Amino acid sequence: MARNTLVQADPNAPPITRLLAEFVANHPSRGWSDAVDHEAHRTFLNWLGCAVGAAYHEAAEAALAAVGVLQPAPQATVAGRPERVDIASAALLNGIASHIFDFDDTHLKTIIHPAGPVASALLALAELTGASGRQVIDALVLGVDVACRMGNVIYPEHYDRGWHITGTTGMLGAAAGCARLLGLDAGRTQMALGIAASQPVGLREQFGTMTKPFHPGAAARAGLMSALLARQGFTASPRALEAPRGFAQVVSDKSAWHEATDELGRRFEISFNSYKPFACGIVIHPSIDACVQLRAQGVRAEQVERIELKVHPLVLELTGKKEPADGLQGKFSVYHGCAAGLILGKASEDEYTDEIVNRADMVALRRKVEATVDERIGEASADMAAVLTDGRRIHIFVEHAIGSLQRPMSDADLAAKFSGMSDPVLGAPRSAALIAACWGLGEAADVRALAALARPA
Amino acid sequence: MARNTLVQADPNAPPITRLLAEFVANHPSRGWSDAVDHEAHRTFLNWLGCAVGAAYHEAAEAALAAVGVLQPAPQATVAGRPERVDIASAALLNGIASHIFDFDDTHLKTIIHPAGPVASALLALAELTGASGRQVIDALVLGVDVACRMGNVIYPEHYDRGWHITGTTGMLGAAAGCARLLGLDAGRTQMALGIAASQPVGLREQFGTMTKPFHPGAAARAGLMSALLARQGFTASPRALEAPRGFAQVVSDKSAWHEATDELGRRFEISFNSYKPFACGIVIHPSIDACVQLRAQGVRAEQVERIELKVHPLVLELTGKKEPADGLQGKFSVYHGCAAGLILGKASEDEYTDEIVNRADMVALRRKVEATVDERIGEASADMAAVLTDGRRIHIFVEHAIGSLQRPMSDADLAAKFSGMSDPVLGAPRSAALIAACWGLGEAADVRALAALARPA
Repeated sequence: MARNTLVQADPNAPPITRLLAEFVANHPSRGWSDAVDHEAHRTFLNWLGCAVGAAYHEAAEAALAAVGVLQPAPQATVAGRPERVDIASAALLNGIASHIFDFDDTHLKTIIHPAGPVASALLALAELTGASGRQVIDALVLGVDVACRMGNVIYPEHYDRGWHITGTTGMLGAAAGCARLLGLDAGRTQMALGIAASQPVGLREQFGTMTKPFHPGAAARAGLMSALLARQGFTASPRALEAPRGFAQVVSDKSAWHEATDELGRRFEISFNSYKPFACGIVIHPSIDACVQLRAQGVRAEQVERIELKVHPLVLELTGKKEPADGLQGKFSVYHGCAAGLILGKASEDEYTDEIVNRADMVALRRKVEATVDERIGEASADMAAVLTDGRRIHIFVEHAIGSLQRPMSDADLAAKFSGMSDPVLGAPRSAALIAACWGLGEAADVRALAALARPA
Repeated sequence: MARNTLVQADPNAPPITRLLAEFVANHPSRGWSDAVDHEAHRTFLNWLGCAVGAAYHEAAEAALAAVGVLQPAPQATVAGRPERVDIASAALLNGIASHIFDFDDTHLKTIIHPAGPVASALLALAELTGASGRQVIDALVLGVDVACRMGNVIYPEHYDRGWHITGTTGMLGAAAGCARLLGLDAGRTQMALGIAASQPVGLREQFGTMTKPFHPGAAARAGLMSALLARQGFTASPRALEAPRGFAQVVSDKSAWHEATDELGRRFEISFNSYKPFACGIVIHPSIDACVQLRAQGVRAEQVERIELKVHPLVLELTGKKEPADGLQGKFSVYHGCAAGLILGKASEDEYTDEIVNRADMVALRRKVEATVDERIGEASADMAAVLTDGRRIHIFVEHAIGSLQRPMSDADLAAKFSGMSDPVLGAPRSAALIAACWGLGEAADVRALAALARPA
């Protein structure tokens, strides 16, 4: 029978479920700056490239096989593959694929990867309804806003507790975006958020397993289904996000309510989205960046006597593996990252194969890297000095790595990243057409043309 | 980037994910007493009757319409309906329907309603694979054991925090049961539990809305899909249940690990399952029971001057509504419950219509009930004295109500409860055949015959 003790309770929380629902349902189409709109296109492009790139990864194959048991109707695209599946399964599979490489976007304030849950649900639903690209971009901006704002409400306590925040806020973003795409009114959007609130997905304990990328996929599916249920009149608590036994207070001891609504409709969280240039943990990025810059100055590996690297303590704590044995271990080695930066000039998924990690020149160079902790170096920075065989000493200080908000990847960088992942799957010409379709999404009359390009010819 | 602070952490938890997986994969078929096996049949019967009974409720209709958007393959039965849907959707829909009336089973130690998530997933999967009834009963016993044992680990702190424990342990039970039904080995069963661990469903804030019954349905679907994924080699943390950032420690501050494995394979939690005789909150049951007993003594409503009822404080706190206006409010009125018990001799879903609640004789009798709090009366008890117009005073003390573990409903009671829900949907002859099929499930060569009977002719 009902117990009445509350572990914690703030019965006076503002009505954020209603306020966010009204915002999602009523905010005008393209009711933001061109910069925000362009960032939405960058977010979509980066998400799709990651999903296409991992289309044949073993985790994607296993998930597709499991979904196949359901004999899904061929409603929507599985990025990079010829198979089509029902829209809920497409949301699941594309959300999984987009996070497999850990190469997707990051809302730095909460470390949410917002596109996985939101865009995966939206593209699938839009394919079925024949929505315009403008409707998808609008829904993406609003869905990401809801997920990241709710993340701001509960982060970091929620993450510290052990939740994988991408999947535990993503279902809210997906529900909001899908509700917008379906044209639900504020009341039904509020119900969609409410139904989704009961379905947070993700434990940090799963990091390092296939269930980590499962989280954004399952969140995408949950949010999509929540919107479909709400459209049919399915009900939920109108205070599901903020009530004492509602989402925020159950999954977190921190509830900074003002984050849900501060500057709502004027500040958009998608503005603060970032994209990884390197397929590894973000703490290594400044060090890799320094080595890429060294290479750009014409320095070759054989000229290097040693590399003196000063880094924030977290770098060696998390990625201090001196002799990585395979590709996966390479992701946890700042030494391999530096070798990739100087010898190969990049560190995409391709630079983390077992073969590359064990290549003689890579091993030789990474052993020349002497990394030391320096408490004065910020988490976003790295200080490198390369001592060359001719006695020269070249100093490079990276305050903010490429891919940070301070030094964002250019559109060309993002397109190149996309090609690197997509060309092997779709072929270069189709990849190029797909990139062009992403940049033009906001003008597209129907997203189905873009979705078709995301499948092999 | 990764944070390393843990809110709480017990890194030395026993390996319960592995131990439970080994148990589920390796325990012998029918490796328990006849009493346990019979209880499993009672659990299945009660679950199916509830699901059939609510087949056309507005929540069931809305959920079916939402699922219909996916154009599901006709793989599995939606209890009580002609439509067939894919197995994941059938698990969802039957789980929802089985909890709509709040008339399903209760594992009293944790107030989990275990059959909804577990049986809903199992029947759907068994229909597709053509499993035998024995396999389903085995999987039901083991799945319920996993869900309720994990409930024992985290209850009551988890529930107090605001989680709806039926949906937040049910995905583990469904995953365990489906893994058993699929014949997964211990390693893959461990992965199934791990994948499911990331997907707890349910907030208590949703009570009173359609999202409450959504919880067991979504848990059923999540557990089923987790088992299908694990069969394909999808991976999860092998310590997903017990690790510091795993399930139990993230969703609860209480982790009584020994509950997971005490007497594992010798004590079965399904033995402690109970079934509601009355379609309302369990605190009212002793009072209704007393009035049913009064009726059995030949007393009629028109002979009653007044009814003096002494009850535990929770009864009036939760169900003290003196003048309920409609059926739903009737569920929160011990006064209406007493009137139903004496005038109608029962309090199934049919006795909670708007019409019955407002019937003149019902209103007249409920106003003669004088309920007072008596701290000496236990939560499971009620003390009633009926004062009749001829001056007689009849005293009835109910220590444990019908439906409790101490006074379980008989098999005949359960069959009558089933008929009351199912006859209006399937017709009496088909209902009777379905009841017989449930009692004989353990001997059935293929569950499909039973599933077919659960659809209209």
